Amino acid sequence: LPESETKDVFIIRSEATQAENFARSGASGVKVQQLVGEPQGSKRVTLRLYTVGKGGHTNLDQHEYEHQMYVLKGHGTLRGKGGDTPLHPGDAVFLPANTLHQFINDHDDPLVYLLSNIM
Amino acid sequence: LPESETKDVFIIRSEATQAENFARSGASGVKVQQLVGEPQGSKRVTLRLYTVGKGGHTNLDQHEYEHQMYVLKGHGTLRGKGGDTPLHPGDAVFLPANTLHQFINDHDDPLVYLLSNIM
Repeated sequence: LPESETKDVFIIRSEATQAENFARSGASGVKVQQLVGEPQGSKRVTLRLYTVGKGGHTNLDQHEYEHQMYVLKGHGTLRGKGGDTPLHPGDAVFLPANTLHQFINDHDDPLVYLLSNIM
Repeated sequence: LPESETKDVFIIRSEATQAENFARSGASGVKVQQLVGEPQGSKRVTLRLYTVGKGGHTNLDQHEYEHQMYVLKGHGTLRGKGGDTPLHPGDAVFLPANTLHQFINDHDDPLVYLLSNIM
């Protein structure tokens, strides 16, 4: 198990979690690792680690729940209603409900980011 | 302003935010940078960046709201009811409501982590 539990504290080592293919229609070259969610009893907010390979992108998406994002490594583009915005390591993003969004890696190195769904 | 808004998307460059002293009773050597919260309309979840210097620590804390944490850099210790657990870069932590917790930097390099309050 990738998580060690000391009574009520949950620690999840991201290196020990499996990278799954993010198999959404319209997405390409994206892997996702589950960090925090229902298995730890987090019912309202998830935490996932995404890796977008060179030339890869998520699907253009829009939904009721909010997103919080933080760029760990690499560079890319956030495509939204208002156009494209470059993303750099250390950038935090808040996407309110129903915000149109797509994460694109138009650079050579992998784009790695944390993403939370706020239900 | 450290945030650039393209219509409904909020991007906050963490380098452009100010590091404030985390002036809690029982805390020592801790700086905090506000990334996401009420200014962006995020009412239920915050995102803050903490830097704990060598020998520093947060206050031993316990509260109703949940925490989500992710270690960006450095090493430290999470002290809880069940004892001490080492923290490494890439570790995600979920602290359910009312979990006793303290973040301690018992290493030489700064301990840098993201922390969300889930209200």
